[in-house]
Amino acid sequence: MKSNRLFYLGIPLIGFCVFAGLRRGSSERVDNRIVRLAELEIDPAQVDSYKAALKEEIETSIRVEPGVLTLYAVSIKGHPEKIRLFETYRDNGAYQAHLQSAHFKKYKERTAGMVKSLTLLETEPVLLGSK
Amino acid sequence: MKSNRLFYLGIPLIGFCVFAGLRRGSSERVDNRIVRLAELEIDPAQVDSYKAALKEEIETSIRVEPGVLTLYAVSIKGHPEKIRLFETYRDNGAYQAHLQSAHFKKYKERTAGMVKSLTLLETEPVLLGSK
Repeated sequence: MKSNRLFYLGIPLIGFCVFAGLRRGSSERVDNRIVRLAELEIDPAQVDSYKAALKEEIETSIRVEPGVLTLYAVSIKGHPEKIRLFETYRDNGAYQAHLQSAHFKKYKERTAGMVKSLTLLETEPVLLGSK
Repeated sequence: MKSNRLFYLGIPLIGFCVFAGLRRGSSERVDNRIVRLAELEIDPAQVDSYKAALKEEIETSIRVEPGVLTLYAVSIKGHPEKIRLFETYRDNGAYQAHLQSAHFKKYKERTAGMVKSLTLLETEPVLLGSK
C-alpha cells in the first residue's frame, strides 16, 4: 500500500521536475537558430496603423508557427516611427515557412505603403541568454 | 482507496498543468519591462577575448539576477566585430541592480580596452512576442 502511494505521488512529481528543469534553461543553446534584426522607418502619419498590423502579425506568428521563437518589436524612445525587430527562428526551415505564411504576406501587403525604409541584418548568435 | 489514488495522482498533475500554462505565455505582457539595445564595435584584434568576457557576463547575469530576462548577443554576419545586444529587464529596479552588480562591473573593466564604440538605445516596447 505504501509503495503504491509513493508510485502515484512520485511519477508526476518526477515529470514536473524534469519539465521545470528543461524549461528553465539558463542560457539557451544556439543550435541552428536564425536571428535577424530589422530596422524600419515608418511614415509618421501612419505609425498607429503600422503598429496595429505589426502586433497582429506577431501574435499570429507566435501562436500558429512552432518555429517562430521570438518576435520582439520596440520603437526607439522619442522616435515612435523608428522600429526595431529582434526575430528568432528555430532554424532556416522555420524562417522560410514564416516568409511563406498567409499572415506574413498579409502584413507585408497591409504595410507596404507605411514603411519608408527597411534594413534587414543577418546575424551570428554569440550567446542568446534568457530565463 | 480509489479516491486516495486519485488524490495522489491528481494534485501533482494539477500543479504541472498550472505551471505549464503559466510558462507558455504566447505574447508576453509588456508591463514595466525595460528593453535596451546596444550597438558595439570591437577592436578586430580582440574580438575573441571580448566575446569570452561577454559570454561570462551574460551567463552570470541570467543565472544570478532574477530581474534580467534576456541578454541576447549577436554579431552582424560577416562583421564579427559589430555586436548587437537585446537586453530585457523586469523593471527599472532590475536594470539599476544589474548596472551595480559585481559581474557587470568586472565585464566593463575587462572590456574597456576592447570596445571602440558603444551606442545605447532606450526603447518603448511595441510587442514582445515569444514562446
